[in-house]
Parts: sequence; structure tokens; C-alpha cells
Amino acid sequence: MAINKLTITLFLLISFAVFHCLAFRVEVQEFEPPRQEGQEGPGGGSGEGWDEEATKNPYHFGQWSFKNFFQSKDGFVKMLPKFTKRSSTLFRGIENYRFLFQEMEPNTFLVPHHLDADYVFLVVQGKGVIGFVTDTANESFQITKGDVVRVPSSVTHFFANTNGTVPLRLAKIAVPANVPGHFQVFFPAHSGFHQSYFTGFSKDVLTASFNIPEELLGRLIRGPQQQVGQGIIRRVSPEQIKELTEHEHATSPSNKHKDKKDKHKDKDRSTFGSPFNLLAQDAIYSNKFGRYHEAHPKRFSQLQDLDIAVGWVNMTQGSLFLPQYNSETTFVTFVENGCARYEMASPYTFQAEQQQPWFGPGQEEEVEEEMSGQVHKIVSRVCKGEVFILPAGHPFAILSQDENFVAVGFGIHASNSTRTFLAGQDNMLSNINTVATRLSFGLGSKLAEKLFTSQNYSHFAPTTPSHQFPEKPKPSFQSIFNLAGF
Amino acid sequence: MAINKLTITLFLLISFAVFHCLAFRVEVQEFEPPRQEGQEGPGGGSGEGWDEEATKNPYHFGQWSFKNFFQSKDGFVKMLPKFTKRSSTLFRGIENYRFLFQEMEPNTFLVPHHLDADYVFLVVQGKGVIGFVTDTANESFQITKGDVVRVPSSVTHFFANTNGTVPLRLAKIAVPANVPGHFQVFFPAHSGFHQSYFTGFSKDVLTASFNIPEELLGRLIRGPQQQVGQGIIRRVSPEQIKELTEHEHATSPSNKHKDKKDKHKDKDRSTFGSPFNLLAQDAIYSNKFGRYHEAHPKRFSQLQDLDIAVGWVNMTQGSLFLPQYNSETTFVTFVENGCARYEMASPYTFQAEQQQPWFGPGQEEEVEEEMSGQVHKIVSRVCKGEVFILPAGHPFAILSQDENFVAVGFGIHASNSTRTFLAGQDNMLSNINTVATRLSFGLGSKLAEKLFTSQNYSHFAPTTPSHQFPEKPKPSFQSIFNLAGF
Amino acid sequence: MAINKLTITLFLLISFAVFHCLAFRVEVQEFEPPRQEGQEGPGGGSGEGWDEEATKNPYHFGQWSFKNFFQSKDGFVKMLPKFTKRSSTLFRGIENYRFLFQEMEPNTFLVPHHLDADYVFLVVQGKGVIGFVTDTANESFQITKGDVVRVPSSVTHFFANTNGTVPLRLAKIAVPANVPGHFQVFFPAHSGFHQSYFTGFSKDVLTASFNIPEELLGRLIRGPQQQVGQGIIRRVSPEQIKELTEHEHATSPSNKHKDKKDKHKDKDRSTFGSPFNLLAQDAIYSNKFGRYHEAHPKRFSQLQDLDIAVGWVNMTQGSLFLPQYNSETTFVTFVENGCARYEMASPYTFQAEQQQPWFGPGQEEEVEEEMSGQVHKIVSRVCKGEVFILPAGHPFAILSQDENFVAVGFGIHASNSTRTFLAGQDNMLSNINTVATRLSFGLGSKLAEKLFTSQNYSHFAPTTPSHQFPEKPKPSFQSIFNLAGF
Repeated sequence: MAINKLTITLFLLISFAVFHCLAFRVEVQEFEPPRQEGQEGPGGGSGEGWDEEATKNPYHFGQWSFKNFFQSKDGFVKMLPKFTKRSSTLFRGIENYRFLFQEMEPNTFLVPHHLDADYVFLVVQGKGVIGFVTDTANESFQITKGDVVRVPSSVTHFFANTNGTVPLRLAKIAVPANVPGHFQVFFPAHSGFHQSYFTGFSKDVLTASFNIPEELLGRLIRGPQQQVGQGIIRRVSPEQIKELTEHEHATSPSNKHKDKKDKHKDKDRSTFGSPFNLLAQDAIYSNKFGRYHEAHPKRFSQLQDLDIAVGWVNMTQGSLFLPQYNSETTFVTFVENGCARYEMASPYTFQAEQQQPWFGPGQEEEVEEEMSGQVHKIVSRVCKGEVFILPAGHPFAILSQDENFVAVGFGIHASNSTRTFLAGQDNMLSNINTVATRLSFGLGSKLAEKLFTSQNYSHFAPTTPSHQFPEKPKPSFQSIFNLAGF
Repeated sequence: MAINKLTITLFLLISFAVFHCLAFRVEVQEFEPPRQEGQEGPGGGSGEGWDEEATKNPYHFGQWSFKNFFQSKDGFVKMLPKFTKRSSTLFRGIENYRFLFQEMEPNTFLVPHHLDADYVFLVVQGKGVIGFVTDTANESFQITKGDVVRVPSSVTHFFANTNGTVPLRLAKIAVPANVPGHFQVFFPAHSGFHQSYFTGFSKDVLTASFNIPEELLGRLIRGPQQQVGQGIIRRVSPEQIKELTEHEHATSPSNKHKDKKDKHKDKDRSTFGSPFNLLAQDAIYSNKFGRYHEAHPKRFSQLQDLDIAVGWVNMTQGSLFLPQYNSETTFVTFVENGCARYEMASPYTFQAEQQQPWFGPGQEEEVEEEMSGQVHKIVSRVCKGEVFILPAGHPFAILSQDENFVAVGFGIHASNSTRTFLAGQDNMLSNINTVATRLSFGLGSKLAEKLFTSQNYSHFAPTTPSHQFPEKPKPSFQSIFNLAGF
Repeated sequence: MAINKLTITLFLLISFAVFHCLAFRVEVQEFEPPRQEGQEGPGGGSGEGWDEEATKNPYHFGQWSFKNFFQSKDGFVKMLPKFTKRSSTLFRGIENYRFLFQEMEPNTFLVPHHLDADYVFLVVQGKGVIGFVTDTANESFQITKGDVVRVPSSVTHFFANTNGTVPLRLAKIAVPANVPGHFQVFFPAHSGFHQSYFTGFSKDVLTASFNIPEELLGRLIRGPQQQVGQGIIRRVSPEQIKELTEHEHATSPSNKHKDKKDKHKDKDRSTFGSPFNLLAQDAIYSNKFGRYHEAHPKRFSQLQDLDIAVGWVNMTQGSLFLPQYNSETTFVTFVENGCARYEMASPYTFQAEQQQPWFGPGQEEEVEEEMSGQVHKIVSRVCKGEVFILPAGHPFAILSQDENFVAVGFGIHASNSTRTFLAGQDNMLSNINTVATRLSFGLGSKLAEKLFTSQNYSHFAPTTPSHQFPEKPKPSFQSIFNLAGF
């Protein structure tokens, strides 16, 4: 009898323990490697076992990391989880930023909505229209590949892919206004699955607000039935596209309500400014192996208060974006075309996260504080549709593979950031003075100069280095090293 | 025997489990609805079951939510808990802000003190004096209903209600300087319950600091005995009030220590600036149904570094502050008079909080990230002395009830925020262009124009809409909808 | 049998409980008093039992609180744990700041490196050189006692102690760029224990980057063998010191790569500006008992974006830095010479931390929100090599002991902060107007004036007050108090 009671009590206690264990499991799954299905093609690997390390790369987000925010046959909006879900320490500095990707099929419309978040987007492919609706105007802008647009928090806007053949693809970075790292979408009109925000109001308030009888409210809060498509992205007729496109040149207040115009003359709501085209700016680095464009918050007022830079890199097959690091900015980078291997050096140890499973999400793990002296190889093959993070101060290099490689990036905390190259003609290390070089590398000045100045290119270089072919200009190179007892 | 030992061990384990369960309970109580006592009068409800939902409204803080910071028969200071105690996600963006309310009976004095927090206050009722004491001066200002005053962190100040009949009521928002979301009060003089901060020093330091014998320190650290009142708010004689009031015009350094004055001529300590009166500013929205005044941080330097706006709304009985949203700011709103129903639309789901009771306070719960498509009705009847939160981007409306409704609000993160109305003459939706309207609402342009332009008023409107009475100007209104097959 | 199974299950459960208890222990140890070994000399104590309280002082970090970041016979770099490890609430406002101390023996070199953190350092002893390496130049600056230098995130730099006899000692405050409160060190060259960040790259990338054969990469990633010292701080020959010192006057781009110079003429990388000497500034407070120098972020652009002030106090034996508080800044103070007793008044209760052991690090405990009315005596004897924290708004005093006392401090959130003295000739309390004084202290105006104006000195005063000796100027002082019935 006593034992029976004991077993019951034990059962409760065990349930309790199991419950804790479950929490444990969930946590561990959270931190599992993002890529296990052998996406890594045989052509990608080229070093000593870096593929294995890649599976632990917390800086790489495969396609499956995205969560669908919305999806239909006419397009989708997907979003990466909050970065601190992957690692609550490594990404704490970019915790309040979210990466999204939006794709709209030809001849589609994304209904008017607003977010409780500021965001910046970059058109990576296609052509279309974005319309902003404010209390005084309906301003539309044509957007095309390379355009960067700032959308302020809570401004109602809509999109259209006005092209008949090419999908419209947008990379976005959002900075939530209410809850750090989280935001929501608000729709004025009901659309199938998504409720109108007018659903939040009582009949009393709605009839009084619109000064209409109760019976007529249905249209507002339930929306049209079967009339248009179901989703928030919906196919539209070529005539409607034409109408939208015609409007797109109107940057002055719409003439629909001429009588109101004068009242608001003094108001200035153009905080979002005009879109600009990143690719129309001069490339800041460019040679036959690659090209890099960047819009900096100090030059573009639209990016200023969010302190975000936007970058676009285009590399020919088999090229190397030379080892470098950013001083203050963390780049969230999206691959638009091709595949590349990116390599990064990190002194951070992040295994701890898998050993402290009882910490809840958002909670801070222990960070190894001891100077371990060890440098971790962070390396992954990244392909179209995937995201990788380049944190401040971490040396990295990008090696394009297979075909033309295109990636775009949003640089967070960009305004005071600079870029330092560790190889190539303008590399920082070539400037360490002679004594310091000798003291640190143990190299004589001639040898050091050779080591840091043999590269003939800046920023981008070929991966089949000239020394592997019969070398004309530097026949005595290796012998210098030999002489130096290397 | 073995069983005896087992039971002891079990007892320990069960205690352990019970202990955990208690933690659980505390948590659940934390998130219980703020209003259960049926405060909702029968006149308040008017929709389909919104009363039930109201009990789950995390944005509404009833009177009992306040904690007494100090209370006596002569007045009180009370404070809302840190907002993240209510919901650690929803309110994370305003985590570092605290709302306080202070009431002083006629002819009372609140002793000099400082906070390790910056704050802004608004006089909602009464007349009085605030005195600032710095190392060079004693500056006093008369304060009256509508006055807004900035008190910088660590500036010693005192209050007096100089009026003989009306209580002095202040609404305050504080931004702590040391510990996000927490601050303390420091008193130079002992007062009954509250120790002087000189209590923190040893006799050695005090005798050396004041250059007085040890025996005389008692007055400083223990204060006067039974001489004046016990509390920090204490009744004062009409003569003392007169003396304080006479001082209040002095905005130049006190003449008590003329000899010091010259030494500090160069110092500029007027960082707190002069108070200004919110009600003396032109109302930004005003008609016969209501009036709204707002002080924006871009215009008032006192509010600039805290990035806070201050608003004051005054509505006649049965009026509607039309559906609207703020783009970046979250308003913490305090009801000063009357009752109103406020309604708000939110796509956020916050039930999760009650399902994860093992998370400690301040820890982040999971936020539902999926676009559920659902809009939640946030609705509450709010009355004098209660607080409700209006987060950025969330459409809301306020419907005054019973009597004249007055509420004041502090807008957090205000400097880039704008306000968008969703109904009324200047509503944003009336500016969506024709194609977009048809595509989103499924309405023809004429119908849409009717829907969004039938309201004859801006910002404030009556709740007994004109269409419910025999309509003169729009007899054919309903028939248009009928024609359209609505 | 059943009992056997029970015992096994019990064993598991007990392990589970013990595991939790261990977590508990670790936590408790974390918050244990920093100084237990009776460092408190008999000459230090002088009040009623303040020594006991001192052992609970969370604001005091003894020498053993430091963690060695690096240590060898030639020098060390050590760092305090993240402040929130000591108390996750009290120090949440300075969570992102880390204090470091670096000492280099005579004739030593600290190899080039960069941090993913911005930092400011102050030379507290010795002479040396700091060299900055950028993509366009190698700029070196001589540094000496009192010099303040700003090192931006990710700038490669090296140090040398160029003096043959005196150690070079630096106090540093760092603001991490990636992970709040955490940073790492990146070394371009391998040095014994510490790997070069080139270790993070594959052979492919390295050979292509440097355009050299694979066989020659060893030098870069493995470094010289037994050639120079093992550690990152290494002894150097007088000739090498001379060479480094000669370079130190070069503030223009190095001439090593003249051909590159023109390309970068337009670039302005001098964000770190020139060092300045704190002791060369006029002392802001000074008399025969002490001297206080301060560099404020509003005057020194190097300190501006980090919003840090730097202070240096020098007191003769037995002097008192009078009771005072800072309005917004929290000072992290390092003792460079001598010992002092510091006393501080705090209304915060932090015992709660020991009662909630199940909270993980970095998680927020409950803060007592009730106005307890109690003031806690925070008091410690602090000696050379120790750190103490002076939070905003908290009144404190420093009493130098034994010998000449020197301390340096970094003031966090400094730009709008002011300092208020509570005793001495310029004390704030002497400015409270007559009525307010009577109402708060219960003192008549004459008595109050005596209490707040008997001190003949400003800012610094002797601890053997003049009244303890036959007093000439104020013979009737005590009798005034007597007359007043004190």
C-alpha cells in the first residue's frame, strides 16, 4: 500500500523530470546544425576536412532555415528566425534585425499593408511598382534590379510585379518598432486568410467611424467573396497592371481628393525619400574578377537612422574576394546567384550552447572568456537563396564556384565602419613597420615584403595563382625563402 | 526502514517539486487579467462579447496594478510595475520606462530628494511649486494644470501643493539611469520612515565632511523628532506655503550665499529648462466633439533627449476619437476623468505567456512567428486612475462614455513618429488609388469613395451617426450599395 | 524488487536534484564577497561595524576578481568578469562595458592584434609606444603616464614598453562591437600559444590571396619556431626598442609603399585622433589635500561616441574626497596607488540575488520595488590593483589612508552628467531655501547654515577636523546647537 502511494508519487516526480528532459531536447534541436542533408556538392570541398566543420557553422542559414511568412502559387514572403534563436550570444548585437525575402510571380499584386517595423529592401531581380499610401497622397515608384527603398514603420504600402515574365525578388532587412526582433503585418482589407484590422473594432465604432449603417460593414471586415484571389499576393490582369504602371509616375499627391490638398500643403511626409539604384553607383572595388557596390548610410539619408549599409558583389567563376574584415558592421548576406565557398576565422567558441540545454530561448549562455588562443575555421558552401553572416572584426574570404556569383548584403551598425584587406595590393599587413614585422612574424623585411606584396591584384583575385604556372616575373621567389632558412 | 528513508528522500524531492510549482503559480498570477471585479458597468458593453475579451487585455492596467511607492493621509506616490512584468515580449520596447502617479493634498510639502532616473511629469490637476536645488542655486517654478516639467536624473527637488482646496496630481514617466527599468529615491534629510542618505556614511566621514563634532551629527542622520510630520509628504502651515510661494518667482540663484555666486557664473546648469503649458499650445485636432493637444520632442527641447511626446485629449460624452495609429511611438495613457471604451486591433498572440510558466521574469517567451492572419480585439472600459497602452502601428479608437473624458499620454520613441487616421475626412484609406482599392477591397471606385468619405468630421466624431436619423444630404446612399450587389 | 527499482529511480531523481543544487552553489559562489582573506587592516576600520558590511559589497572587485586574459613573465593582460555576473540587475546599465588592465615589463613588445571592441586606455605608469596599422599607414605614438588613447574596433595595433626600468601599466575600458559585453582578440601572426587568424583559411584561399606556393604558407600560419619569445608579450633587444622609438614620431603614412600613397589621399582614417594627456589638463578640483583631473567626452572628440569620461584623483594621506554624487555617469574606478576607504549610500537591496539561485547568468532577478526607506552602507577598503564602482546618483566619499592615494576612473554615460557635492564650501545642500530646510531638516535657518557651511574647504578636506583642536574662529559653534535644543 505504502509502496503504491510511493509509486504514484514517483510517477509524478518522474513526469516532472521527463518534462525537464523534453525542454532539454527542444533546446538541443534548436542548436542543431543548419545543413545535414548533404547539400554540399562534391565540387565544393577542397581543403582538409572543412566540410565536417561546415555542419557546425552557426553563421550559415540554409534555405530550410527560413520560415514561410506567406506562400501561394503567386509568390511568397519568408523570414529567417530571430538570429538569437541560433545563438543567443553570437548574434545578440543584431538581435533586433530580421531578414526577409519576398518573391512575386509575373503580373501579381501584394495588397496594401503596414508593419510595426522599419525596413530597407533591395530589388535583386525583376521590375515592379511600390505604392505608398499616406493621409495626404498615394505615391508610387517604379522599382527595378538594384533599387534600394526605405519603408518607414507603419506606412501603408503595396507592391506589384508589373513584368509579364520575370519574378520580382526583394531582399529585406527589418528593424521592429515595438518588440525587439519581432513585428507583425497589418492589413486594412480582408483577404481570404488574413483578417482586416477593422475586425478589431466593434460595430459601434465602425458605424460611427464611417458614418454608414451597420449592414454595410460586412464588405470592410469580411472583404469580397471569391471576387479576387484568396491570398495577399494575387494575380492581376494586364489592364490593371497598366493602370498601376500609369500611376507610378505620379509622385505628387493624387488628384482624387483635390479639396483636401491645400489643407496639408505644409506637411512633409517624405521621410522615406526616393529609391536609389545601388548598381548605378560606381563600384567601390572592381577588376576583371569581381565588382563590389556599396551604399553607405553617411551618403544615403534613407539608410541613416537605421544605420544600415547595402552591398552588392558580383564575381566571375573561380574568383576570390580577398581576405578582409569590417571594423564595426555585421553583414547579413544573401546569395542571389551561383555558389561560393566562404571562409572565416573566429576566436569565439560557441559549443557551450549545446552543453547548457536548460537555458530558455533568448537567454544568455556562458561565453568562453579565456583567451583560448585557438582560431576556428568557419567555412561553408553557400548557394542561391541562402544567407551567411559576416560579423565585425572577423577576417573572411569568398571564393566563387561553378558560375557567376552574386550576393547582396545588409551591413548593420555601418556608419563608423571601415573595411580592411589582409591581402592584395592595398593590404593592411604590408604597412606594419619593419621592426614590428620582424618581431611578430619573425621575418626579415625583404621576406615580409615578398609575403605581403606578391599579390598583383586588389580586392578580387584569381584562384589559379600565377605561381602555379611557369612564372616569369618572380623566378627567384622561392629561393629567397630558402635562403632565409624557411 | 528502507521505506522510511525513502519517504524522507521523497519528502525532500516533493518539497523541491512543490517549490517549483509555487514558482509556477506566482508566474501565472503575474499574468492574470488586471480587472476581474466586474468594474465593467452595464452601460459600457455594446458589442458581441467584447467584455470577456477585455479580461485578457494585457494593455490595460487597472488601479490595483499600481504599487504604492509611498502613501499617507497627505498624499501618495504610486508606480506601475515594470511593463515587462506583464508581458516580457509585448513591452520589451518600453522596458526601460516607468509610469508613476503622485497626488498631494492641499497645503502639503514633499521633502527634497533625487532619483537615479530622468523623468518628465505633467500636472493633471491643481497648483503648486517645484523647487530645484543645485550647487549654485535654488530655483522654484509655479506649476499648474497642463504644465510639463523635465526633471533630470539626480537633481535634488521638492514639491509643494500651495492650493488650499484642490489636490495636486502629477502623471510621470521615468527613465532610470543605472538599472534599466528600476530606480530609487535618495533623501538628504531623514523623515520618519525614510533614512537620510547620510546614514550611509561613517562618523569619521561625516564629522570631517561637515567639520562638526560627532555629537551634532544626530540631527543630520536621524532627523527632527516629532517636530514635523512623519512622512515624506507632510502638511504645512499657510505661512510656510506663503514663504514657498514667494520664493517661486526667483529663477535666479538664491541670495543666501552671495559670496559664492561669482565663482560659478560660467556654469550652465539649466538643462531642465523652464516648464511649459501643454494646454496653452494650439490643439492639433479640435472640433465640438473633442480636442487633442500634443507636445513633440522636436519642438520642446526638454523632451528631446528622452524622446518623449506628451498628449492631452478631452472628449465630450459619447464622442469617438476616430480609428488611427501612431507610426513609431507607444503611448502610455492615463485616464484623468470619466470613462471610455478603447478598442484596438492586434495581430500579436500573447497567450503563449500563460503556457510557459517556468520562465522567470524578464525572460523572453516565444512569440508566435507564423502569420496567423488573425486579428485580436483588444478592448477595455478604462476609467479615472487607470492606464492603457497604445503600441506603435496598432489601429485603435477611443469612445468616451458617461461624462467628459480626459486622458493624458506619454509617447515613447516619439521623435520620428507620425499619426495616421483610418476614418474621418483626412483618412489615409481614401488615398489608396483606384486600382489598388479595387484589388484589395474588391470595391468599385465610387463605392470605395462612399465607404471612405461618408464621414463628415475629422479626428473626433459623434457616436450617434447621422445616418441613423432621417438623412437629408445622402438619401441614396444605401441604394448605391444595393446597386453594387453588396 | 520493487524497492530496488524504486531506489534506482530515486537515485536518478536525487542526481537530478543534486545537479540543481550544484547550479545553486555555483550561483551563490558567484555572488560571494570579493574579499574574505582579512585584507582589511586594523587601521582601516573606524566606524560601527562597517567592516562586516564590507564583505557584502557588490561594488568592490578585489584583485582576485580579475581573470587572466594572458600572462607571462614579461607581462599580463587581465580583465574583470562582465559586471552583470556579479549582479545582473545592479550592473545591467554598464553590461556592455569591460574593464581590463595591462602590464608590460621593461623592454617588451605586445604583438600586433585587433579586438572586435572599441576601447579607451589610460597610461597609469611608465612610457612606451603604440603603433596603429591601417591599410594606408603605420602610425606610432609615444605614450606616457596620464595619456589617454582611443583605439577603434578592429584597428590593428601593437604596444612596446620602451623604458628600460619601469613597467608600462594601462587601465582600459572596452565596448564590444559584436556581442554585448564580450569580445575577442585577433592576431595576424602566430605566436606560440595563439594562432594566427590566417589559420581560419584553407590553403586554396591563402595561396591565391598571397599568390605564393602552398609550401611557403607555414611561416604565416605557424609562425617562427623558437625564434622570438613564446607569448604575445615578448622581450625585445635595446636595438629593436630604438628602432621602434624612432618610428614613433612618424605620424604621416609610412614611406614603404610610396606608390600607394596617392591613391588614398582622400581617405580619412584618423578616427582615433591623437592621444592627449589627462594630467596636462588643469585639475578641476585642487587644494593641498587632493587634486582631480577629468577629461569629458564633450571636450575630447576621442571619447565622444563611446560617451566615456576619464578621471584621475590624487589625494594626500588622511584626506577626504567630500561626499558627492554623479548625476548620470557610473564610474569604474581603479586604484593605482595606496589604500582608501570608500563609503557609499545605496537604497538598493540586492540580497534577493542569493535567494534566487535557479536564475542563470545574465538573467534578471527580482529587484525590491517597495520603497523600503532603508539606506545601505556600502563600504570597503580599496587598495592598489582593485576596482570599485560608483553608480549614478549614489552619494559617496573617499578617505585616503596610509600613503598617497591615486585612482583613475572611467565614467560611463558621461556626456550629460554633472557632479554634486553634499559637503564643503560649494555644497548643494547649502542652497536649499530657508523654508524647505526647516521643513525637511527641522532646522532653523541659522542652524542649517551652520550645519552646511562650517566646512572651510571645497572638494577635498582633512580628516582631522579643525573642531577637534582648540577652535579659534568658531568658539560659539557648539553652543548654538545647544541653544537650539539639539
